[in-house]
Amino acid sequence: MLEHLKEEVFRANLELPERGLIQYTWGNVSAFDPESGYFVIKPSGVSYEEMKASDMVVVDLENHVIEGELNPSSDTPTHAVLYQTFPGLGGIVHTHSPWATIWAQAGQDVPAMGTTHADTFYGTVPCARFLSQKEIDAGYEHETGNVIVETFQERNIKPLDVPGVLLHGHGPFTWGKDAASAVMNAVVLEEVCRMNFYTRQLNSYAEELPKRILDKHYLRKHGKDAYYGQGK
Amino acid sequence: MLEHLKEEVFRANLELPERGLIQYTWGNVSAFDPESGYFVIKPSGVSYEEMKASDMVVVDLENHVIEGELNPSSDTPTHAVLYQTFPGLGGIVHTHSPWATIWAQAGQDVPAMGTTHADTFYGTVPCARFLSQKEIDAGYEHETGNVIVETFQERNIKPLDVPGVLLHGHGPFTWGKDAASAVMNAVVLEEVCRMNFYTRQLNSYAEELPKRILDKHYLRKHGKDAYYGQGK
Amino acid sequence: MLEHLKEEVFRANLELPERGLIQYTWGNVSAFDPESGYFVIKPSGVSYEEMKASDMVVVDLENHVIEGELNPSSDTPTHAVLYQTFPGLGGIVHTHSPWATIWAQAGQDVPAMGTTHADTFYGTVPCARFLSQKEIDAGYEHETGNVIVETFQERNIKPLDVPGVLLHGHGPFTWGKDAASAVMNAVVLEEVCRMNFYTRQLNSYAEELPKRILDKHYLRKHGKDAYYGQGK
Amino acid sequence: MLEHLKEEVFRANLELPERGLIQYTWGNVSAFDPESGYFVIKPSGVSYEEMKASDMVVVDLENHVIEGELNPSSDTPTHAVLYQTFPGLGGIVHTHSPWATIWAQAGQDVPAMGTTHADTFYGTVPCARFLSQKEIDAGYEHETGNVIVETFQERNIKPLDVPGVLLHGHGPFTWGKDAASAVMNAVVLEEVCRMNFYTRQLNSYAEELPKRILDKHYLRKHGKDAYYGQGK
Repeated sequence: MLEHLKEEVFRANLELPERGLIQYTWGNVSAFDPESGYFVIKPSGVSYEEMKASDMVVVDLENHVIEGELNPSSDTPTHAVLYQTFPGLGGIVHTHSPWATIWAQAGQDVPAMGTTHADTFYGTVPCARFLSQKEIDAGYEHETGNVIVETFQERNIKPLDVPGVLLHGHGPFTWGKDAASAVMNAVVLEEVCRMNFYTRQLNSYAEELPKRILDKHYLRKHGKDAYYGQGK
Repeated sequence: MLEHLKEEVFRANLELPERGLIQYTWGNVSAFDPESGYFVIKPSGVSYEEMKASDMVVVDLENHVIEGELNPSSDTPTHAVLYQTFPGLGGIVHTHSPWATIWAQAGQDVPAMGTTHADTFYGTVPCARFLSQKEIDAGYEHETGNVIVETFQERNIKPLDVPGVLLHGHGPFTWGKDAASAVMNAVVLEEVCRMNFYTRQLNSYAEELPKRILDKHYLRKHGKDAYYGQGK
Repeated sequence: MLEHLKEEVFRANLELPERGLIQYTWGNVSAFDPESGYFVIKPSGVSYEEMKASDMVVVDLENHVIEGELNPSSDTPTHAVLYQTFPGLGGIVHTHSPWATIWAQAGQDVPAMGTTHADTFYGTVPCARFLSQKEIDAGYEHETGNVIVETFQERNIKPLDVPGVLLHGHGPFTWGKDAASAVMNAVVLEEVCRMNFYTRQLNSYAEELPKRILDKHYLRKHGKDAYYGQGK
Repeated sequence: MLEHLKEEVFRANLELPERGLIQYTWGNVSAFDPESGYFVIKPSGVSYEEMKASDMVVVDLENHVIEGELNPSSDTPTHAVLYQTFPGLGGIVHTHSPWATIWAQAGQDVPAMGTTHADTFYGTVPCARFLSQKEIDAGYEHETGNVIVETFQERNIKPLDVPGVLLHGHGPFTWGKDAASAVMNAVVLEEVCRMNFYTRQLNSYAEELPKRILDKHYLRKHGKDAYYGQGK
């Protein structure tokens, strides 16, 4: 069942340590199948050396395991909320990648300070608030998804324009049109968090990228007038 | 004698450079055998390229070599004190891993600033004081163990809840249920020291993780209500 | 056509990720053929795993594709302006290498603070200004080249003495006598940006290298009295 | 001639990029043969990929090439002064390793802030002053050696107790009983420079290691009462 998607999710998970985003099992990738409404996610706490594509778990948007011998990632309910609420997501990644986690621990939004950011994120990547005790008791992982949704709605950010978020005190989630592009967005966010940190240290007066450059770079890669790459 | 444990200790030592925790011979791992009351530790100053599993040394808790051709690690008496005083330790690791050593050189405790910390350490990782001249003369490595024990007792920290410590001006010790988990805890401590340093630089007002999130993350992985991973 | 140069450009592009300057496709290298007046450049947005030497694109100095199936790098017009205006360039590199990008995001020139800098760059590496909206509308990539040229002319810097520049909010361009030396200059600039950042943090009073040491190091490797290396 | 030493010097040079101390040809290692009074050093500006053991150059202490087809390292006269003036040196290393170079660019001595330092360097690693114009004119590389010697003499430091130095605005030299131990000392200096930088940033009040701990760590590895390692 969904063998092709399992293979994709498996490979995208392996890419996390290869790209230096995680150690051990500190991350998870999923991918959504619009036809069935199911998504495929990595199992919880299985070492990447032993993990196989067939260990990937198929779940529905109410977090029921549809197929798989192993427990799905403990963060599965967060993925489910995002697939349910943000139309168009094909893949989701969660990591504790160091630089994004540093910004998350500092509780800070990540402003667009350069074109590396503008090529992928059309503006500030927001940092979502801590969960309350009540939310933790109601279901920590599910409510984490709700806090992400709240953040995008309150700030009026389109999830496909800014495909990522930080969770205060925790780490990043990113998404994309499929698992591989969600991983690529996690790599960009990590790099941007690293470079913005040092930019501020080097020049505490450094400002955000002018809007005209942000527009130019984002729109030469995204949307109907894009001309970067090899086209269709 | 204890061939299986020698193999485990050998592999755990090799993991130190593989995980980027040490260069050359700047670390040591041991593992305890509760049945015999002996522990197995790496030999002193032997290069990792030449070292074999059979070079591991078996010692008792009074630091007598029970089996082995080579001198055990010069830090052996510190390991012995910890196995003797902290019940339940199966493995101990000492390194000069850079970030934990930076905090040790700064003489600072490592507060829980994120869930990466909370997943492994249930609160602040303490920094133990310098040894006095009298303690150095009485036996530097043995008294180092005693200062670690003093630190946990005075602050009323349970060693299994917070499986690591910094030694002022020196570096970290971590422990766990076996050699491999002691190494994993050394990796977590290193990562947490790195991320907390930058978190403070990015936002000098950054606070510790709220207690409710610390509890949630530690207890979803540890204790009777844990639900992370694949269960028993 | 220009098969040898395609091979050189292909290999120089592969060197960017190998040297840690880029991830994914965040860079481009070209090389100029003085005889034909054409240059060879990597295609736009093609993954480095799939790219072949034969995918390199031949273009003229008015950005017309002379040979090649794929779209050339979107930064092609910047390369063209530099080849046209700065006589003697054999290769050009653009990256988003992190440390050079950090200085670019901070909008700061890179002063010569050590001999690593002086061995390659004969003085400060300048940071060029942001483009205006009018310039963006007139042709972003072409005008980027013009802003680089303006920077060198206004400051009276010889492009062969200082073979690199930062673009405010974007990243570095470097050049050299061929593609490989342009890559080497990109590596030096990256290293110098890293070391100068930390030098300033360690000692905010740290000054530029004395002129006499700058002269000595640059001139023992460059010009008619050079004695470094194996001669002709 | 001195084939064994050529092999040692060749391997020690290759270790520089392997240990992350240099890129390209930004370093050089030599080793001294007390019997002949000659030393073996790497050739100038030859890429490490193409270099062979037989390319190593034999020179005497007056910098005459005794054997070899290639020009010796341009820093050869610095090595010669050190072998001539500091009795007991078997190997010398020069690099532009980033962290030691950062301290050199900042013009700062490296204090002993931890046991990683104390295990190898018995006290502060000094930073030598810039050369004057007169000294540059008299012979830059030779006078660099003299300024190192001056530094150790004026401060009354024993070169075998503190086997390394920084050159203001340039980078480190280290030495040891042979080429391999000189490389190891370069690695330690690099690591200590990195850790001390961050220690100061984390806690600007962090003090030097107490003298009693410095003594204990240095003397358990060096001198007649050493007990670290496997003895003779």
